[in-house]
Amino acid sequence: MGSNIYIGLVHHPIYDKRKEVVATAVTNFDIHDIARCTRTFGAGGFFIITPLESQIQLVERVIRHWVEGNGAVYNPSRKESLSLVRVTRTIDEADREISSLWQRKVRRVATGAARHPNSIGFEMLRKLTGDGNTPFFMLFGTGWGLTQEVKDSSDYVLAPIEGKGYNHLSVRSAVAVILDRLLGDRIINSE
Amino acid sequence: MGSNIYIGLVHHPIYDKRKEVVATAVTNFDIHDIARCTRTFGAGGFFIITPLESQIQLVERVIRHWVEGNGAVYNPSRKESLSLVRVTRTIDEADREISSLWQRKVRRVATGAARHPNSIGFEMLRKLTGDGNTPFFMLFGTGWGLTQEVKDSSDYVLAPIEGKGYNHLSVRSAVAVILDRLLGDRIINSE
Repeated sequence: MGSNIYIGLVHHPIYDKRKEVVATAVTNFDIHDIARCTRTFGAGGFFIITPLESQIQLVERVIRHWVEGNGAVYNPSRKESLSLVRVTRTIDEADREISSLWQRKVRRVATGAARHPNSIGFEMLRKLTGDGNTPFFMLFGTGWGLTQEVKDSSDYVLAPIEGKGYNHLSVRSAVAVILDRLLGDRIINSE
Repeated sequence: MGSNIYIGLVHHPIYDKRKEVVATAVTNFDIHDIARCTRTFGAGGFFIITPLESQIQLVERVIRHWVEGNGAVYNPSRKESLSLVRVTRTIDEADREISSLWQRKVRRVATGAARHPNSIGFEMLRKLTGDGNTPFFMLFGTGWGLTQEVKDSSDYVLAPIEGKGYNHLSVRSAVAVILDRLLGDRIINSE
């Protein structure tokens, strides 16, 4: 259940504050927080997407520390979550890994804070992903968000998390809320 | 709506890994991520609770930078969220601020990853807070979580976020999910 949902954290191509296409640096908190969400909600995996060689090495070092190094002894629960993390240079490279594992075409879902004319709602996406047979790749932008091109080339654009006149969540918080809406318990411990 | 819900991020008293009662350092990401969630979901405020003088000064400096300093010009949306943050030395001190504002007794809700025999479910708490007339103070532990004493002296202990056999979310992710469950849109953009 849910293992057909994959997270992609995109560090390029994304916009910066002036809407120029850039590559952002990887944030250590993103790796841990999103890996722990991936494991908690039972998603299939978490791809960190960056073309920068220094960043790729950094992420691989973090993963090794927690999965095979001293971190695995110090905190075994981190080993469990960090072992779901992969690094790829492009969105397409991650996509190919997923589709080769599933032997099926991957459906891409772009996320973002802005509204989009043809966005898909959470309930509908929860239904679609619920069949469990099709892999879905949820793309999250760092910086000032995914480029228009990435959105246009996705199969779906997810509706934004509606705030009270403000929706400037961190990408870490957005992943947590979206995974809970797609995969969290719906019969929420009512008593 | 929701402005009767307050967040308290407790840095003391909480447990460390060996279940000793300690004071943790404040994490900069916690300040920003949780302030942005507080503002997005329309909660009333966010208290950072720490008895350590150095930490109090650190948090106040961060808030000043974003609310009054250069940060307010660079990123006005941070000003909006960070202006909801307060620092207090104890849980009681924050509690008194809230109750003096509302002129009503504050209901305390402890949160945590462990199950508790008399926990309250999310739907029930959503109903209770929905009246809008009673202030609720949601306590989140850093480190290895709130002490038993804090839980025992709370009016409610919230049910944990149930993971798939794993619920080691960061406190940042837990706040995001819990605020969404209590205050997020329930008619979730279905189409």
